[in-house]
Amino acid sequence: MIRVGVIGYGYWGPNLVRNFVEAPGAHVVGVSDLRNERLNLVRSRYPAVETTSDYRDLVRHPDIDAIAIATPVSSHFELALQALEAGKHVLVEKPLTASAEQAERLIDLAERQQRVLMVDHTFVYTGAVRKIHQLVSSDELGQIYYYDSVRVNLGLFQNDVNVLWDLGVHDLSILDYVVNQHPRAVSATGMSHVDGQPENIAYLTLFFDECIIGHIHMNWLSPVKVRRTLIGGSHKMIVYDDLENSEKVRVYDSGITVNNNADSLYQMLIGYRMGDMWAPRLDVTEALQTEVRHFLDCIEHNQSPITDGHAGLRIVRILEAATRSLAGRGQLVELPSSDP
Amino acid sequence: MIRVGVIGYGYWGPNLVRNFVEAPGAHVVGVSDLRNERLNLVRSRYPAVETTSDYRDLVRHPDIDAIAIATPVSSHFELALQALEAGKHVLVEKPLTASAEQAERLIDLAERQQRVLMVDHTFVYTGAVRKIHQLVSSDELGQIYYYDSVRVNLGLFQNDVNVLWDLGVHDLSILDYVVNQHPRAVSATGMSHVDGQPENIAYLTLFFDECIIGHIHMNWLSPVKVRRTLIGGSHKMIVYDDLENSEKVRVYDSGITVNNNADSLYQMLIGYRMGDMWAPRLDVTEALQTEVRHFLDCIEHNQSPITDGHAGLRIVRILEAATRSLAGRGQLVELPSSDP
Amino acid sequence: MIRVGVIGYGYWGPNLVRNFVEAPGAHVVGVSDLRNERLNLVRSRYPAVETTSDYRDLVRHPDIDAIAIATPVSSHFELALQALEAGKHVLVEKPLTASAEQAERLIDLAERQQRVLMVDHTFVYTGAVRKIHQLVSSDELGQIYYYDSVRVNLGLFQNDVNVLWDLGVHDLSILDYVVNQHPRAVSATGMSHVDGQPENIAYLTLFFDECIIGHIHMNWLSPVKVRRTLIGGSHKMIVYDDLENSEKVRVYDSGITVNNNADSLYQMLIGYRMGDMWAPRLDVTEALQTEVRHFLDCIEHNQSPITDGHAGLRIVRILEAATRSLAGRGQLVELPSSDP
Amino acid sequence: MIRVGVIGYGYWGPNLVRNFVEAPGAHVVGVSDLRNERLNLVRSRYPAVETTSDYRDLVRHPDIDAIAIATPVSSHFELALQALEAGKHVLVEKPLTASAEQAERLIDLAERQQRVLMVDHTFVYTGAVRKIHQLVSSDELGQIYYYDSVRVNLGLFQNDVNVLWDLGVHDLSILDYVVNQHPRAVSATGMSHVDGQPENIAYLTLFFDECIIGHIHMNWLSPVKVRRTLIGGSHKMIVYDDLENSEKVRVYDSGITVNNNADSLYQMLIGYRMGDMWAPRLDVTEALQTEVRHFLDCIEHNQSPITDGHAGLRIVRILEAATRSLAGRGQLVELPSSDP
Repeated sequence: MIRVGVIGYGYWGPNLVRNFVEAPGAHVVGVSDLRNERLNLVRSRYPAVETTSDYRDLVRHPDIDAIAIATPVSSHFELALQALEAGKHVLVEKPLTASAEQAERLIDLAERQQRVLMVDHTFVYTGAVRKIHQLVSSDELGQIYYYDSVRVNLGLFQNDVNVLWDLGVHDLSILDYVVNQHPRAVSATGMSHVDGQPENIAYLTLFFDECIIGHIHMNWLSPVKVRRTLIGGSHKMIVYDDLENSEKVRVYDSGITVNNNADSLYQMLIGYRMGDMWAPRLDVTEALQTEVRHFLDCIEHNQSPITDGHAGLRIVRILEAATRSLAGRGQLVELPSSDP
Repeated sequence: MIRVGVIGYGYWGPNLVRNFVEAPGAHVVGVSDLRNERLNLVRSRYPAVETTSDYRDLVRHPDIDAIAIATPVSSHFELALQALEAGKHVLVEKPLTASAEQAERLIDLAERQQRVLMVDHTFVYTGAVRKIHQLVSSDELGQIYYYDSVRVNLGLFQNDVNVLWDLGVHDLSILDYVVNQHPRAVSATGMSHVDGQPENIAYLTLFFDECIIGHIHMNWLSPVKVRRTLIGGSHKMIVYDDLENSEKVRVYDSGITVNNNADSLYQMLIGYRMGDMWAPRLDVTEALQTEVRHFLDCIEHNQSPITDGHAGLRIVRILEAATRSLAGRGQLVELPSSDP
Repeated sequence: MIRVGVIGYGYWGPNLVRNFVEAPGAHVVGVSDLRNERLNLVRSRYPAVETTSDYRDLVRHPDIDAIAIATPVSSHFELALQALEAGKHVLVEKPLTASAEQAERLIDLAERQQRVLMVDHTFVYTGAVRKIHQLVSSDELGQIYYYDSVRVNLGLFQNDVNVLWDLGVHDLSILDYVVNQHPRAVSATGMSHVDGQPENIAYLTLFFDECIIGHIHMNWLSPVKVRRTLIGGSHKMIVYDDLENSEKVRVYDSGITVNNNADSLYQMLIGYRMGDMWAPRLDVTEALQTEVRHFLDCIEHNQSPITDGHAGLRIVRILEAATRSLAGRGQLVELPSSDP
Repeated sequence: MIRVGVIGYGYWGPNLVRNFVEAPGAHVVGVSDLRNERLNLVRSRYPAVETTSDYRDLVRHPDIDAIAIATPVSSHFELALQALEAGKHVLVEKPLTASAEQAERLIDLAERQQRVLMVDHTFVYTGAVRKIHQLVSSDELGQIYYYDSVRVNLGLFQNDVNVLWDLGVHDLSILDYVVNQHPRAVSATGMSHVDGQPENIAYLTLFFDECIIGHIHMNWLSPVKVRRTLIGGSHKMIVYDDLENSEKVRVYDSGITVNNNADSLYQMLIGYRMGDMWAPRLDVTEALQTEVRHFLDCIEHNQSPITDGHAGLRIVRILEAATRSLAGRGQLVELPSSDP
């Protein structure tokens, strides 16, 4: 039985608590939050769970083995650091930390303490992304040409991080998992439309050693919600639309036709899709359930999670580089060539 | 009666010929094309129209007042130059020329010759874009925040120009018409996936003096066709989806909510659209019909067309700057601050 | 404070309990279910709520004022009867009863006992249907011409009732609320594709005194889920698509054009939509929350609910007539001309 | 070389003429229409084609082998009769005739004259319907359970025929081709919303010997255009959406699950689609081109077309029966058990 404490019961915390409560082999010991009305909610839902407004009560708790952190980014490092120092396993909401240097320190500490450090890159655990990973890994798409994602909606402006750190992290974590390559440089542009606030619209291009290009399109000010990713390969291409009810992942066996003949151009314009389309059945298990059980498994079997500290670090490095490029209006910013 | 000659009867030429044939006040005298089978097609469809494989027969034709050019970009300048020198009015397919310097020379020559020089920015003449222009001009959107377009499909690779010069020119001409501001700098990224061929995927950010950002997303290698433009304003926002059968233009009265309250964030996620949506009825006249008649009107009344040589030049300048930025992997390239 | 007992904790019961728990002015005293594992679920979620496998413990409970019934249709009558006899107010899941005669007896008893009898026609309390009701009531649509609904999906076959009593009841309750007319006759067709099972596919036409026609299209065996209702009026028409994330209700100002001119037929085919479209902002409150509070209000202020016993009876009468017509392969079955 | 005359140059005639002009092995000799402005159009487009306002000039023309008829339904019989009597092959727009008795007489006459009699059931020649036919024929769907089509739009009211004879004929011809069974009885309901005009809304149920049910949903007064057909089988199901740009035909490997277990009901509601979906690549040749060439082939090789007079008769019989049932408000009308 792994005993769990959860820090933060705002937007995401209740989902973590619910999934730990329902996971076999886990027991939720306590929840902390600074707001008393959130703790009241915990008490009404889970009378047996301890509540506290001081996270240190959980970090120091002798009956807690693992800590899940669902607080604003700026506090991730300090909370995770204390939890690891106290010998707890740690699951941190995305992004892992506010800087690469912080992420490196957590990775080191977790290794020294021999504890699991996992970042909550939730999308990696969805049926859709796992299916895409499988299709790419089994070489069904052929050589990968591009990853191109639009993730926009009319959301509230956040005032502590820009849209890259909020919406972009989802695509970066999917890209990191699905494409077995790491970007070497980024170019980002964007803008803030509210004085003194972080950028609410941003565009990020990622360059790789291979002939792959990545692009992410983020906007907090869109009148419509879009969650659509195109992944192009030399044999097949994928459209992943997370707002589709049924066919979230569609696989097209379209290929490149290099043809200088004017007549066939005309023909292309009429029937531009070249082959069949196929939408595989997806596992509909809630992603966070899969993720929480993976975290528990890793603790139990002393293994490294799919979204370990290094995955978290890679994403934070890209976010840092992208933020610098944004300030330079698209200026190319190189990324370190390897993850030490 | 304005007598017209058309150079080029490939993909677009037949549409030009058909619209000039049906336009009151116009008469199609002759068509030229290098390929005999294309001329056969003209003869079977329009037995009274003269055909020739030498465009000079049209340029020198004493009974021709105006020349429409529908040939590859690389030939636009030379053909338009000869037609203007011969005293003809000229309509050139987009983009106007292969360089800004060529466009400037055509503008000068047209002014000296007192002839109409018009570029075929077809989308400007669609019911959808004219409605959007009207909404922006009448200040219904408030201050413009962004223009963001995705224009992707599985098209044939062109081997003379990159995707910017092919798909991008549509959005640049719409943006030029709709937003009464000119970009001051661009940052572009992209990639070619076929050795020795021009870029088949590109992303272009445009910066303005005002707090506006533009972004265009182009791809010849997408498994699905997308033609979706978001235009954000401080009062209202537009979604323009050219593939919609009925409601191509949707106007949302969504506004910014700067709200740091965590509880309302949760509420936002449930009901993210803030106001009503409205889809105006659009004029469904074929854009090229409207355009051809505008060209004839401008000739008859000695007026400057909406998409005159200057509009053509502005777009070519952006394309040149974007191509330089593309080579520099997102490097910022400034644009001249005014159109002389 | 109104004290509530809930009978049945299967698919719908948990939603009722949750909404009563969260409603100000209500207190959930007890929940009954025949299955112990469902009661365990109640206990883990709401430790303070009494649980029992015998519904009579709730019906006789001195501290309970109102009973909500969320059990199979066949048991509705008996449970509601006992609750009313014990002096409780009653909320019954739809359809109200398995026969019109049962519904009439419940109505009589509720009136004698001066207790609230309400049927859970949930859709009536959605923001979408309330908006449609308002548009129709305020005469925005003009004269109503038709109500036409498609409600199909790949659902589990039920073995106690046919698809009319399962899916059809939703549309009948919406139609009853929105159109201020009652059907005079019905014609229904359908089929069962599994031996010995009730019809899994059915089509129901409703005739009215006025020049209105209603049609409902139900299918448990559709590969895709569809929830689309068209409501046609002489001035405007509505498309209500319950699967849309944002614009569930669209209002079209399309009208009839009686035109024998062949040329305009051609023009119609190009631009078939005649006017603007408008999608009003909808209240996104959970329907069951609105409904539960309405039930509590009616108890407190001694009023009759929107979906009272008479509404429930009208729907059950149509279902009975439709089931007879179904057996007669479309045979017209008249409905009583008034609700006594 | 088969020499062709076309009677009627209104909405559909121009498509027939264009396809015969472009078909190898055919030559368009003449076109007739009562309206002089339509004949002017023919002359401007095809100067070599003879034009006449008297169809008898074509029927008696010694250089004409085949006559295509694209006139209102009421004139089909008389025109086809005269053409067959004059020894011409005949292609008649759908529906074949205004009554089954007329269709029978044409079939007899064509057989006696040994001429091809073909009805223009255009949809049968689309890539989509041919693919569906192939999937059903090869038993990929298993046993057919239902054919369910919605065909609605805001069209002009016709004043000579009701909506069954206008929109319904498309689905009946598709159903006739795709499902190798003939209906035994029909039940239809509908209504006219304009005094003295034919029904503008209709619903038609078809019963078969086998456990198949057909349903067609027609409306001239819908604010939106819908062209969606569901075909359910025991192994697979098809969604055919003719308004889709790319994936018109989708094949779902969903099957029936007869399951009384309440828990799995819950699971069904989350992931209601049971298997993969597949959208085959379709032939995008214009249907009328395929059809016209089939007509020419049948003439040349003395064969019976897919949509021969018998196919035309079967559809007219259903339309007659449906119109009777409509008058009887859903009254069951039997169809003759075989096509003599």
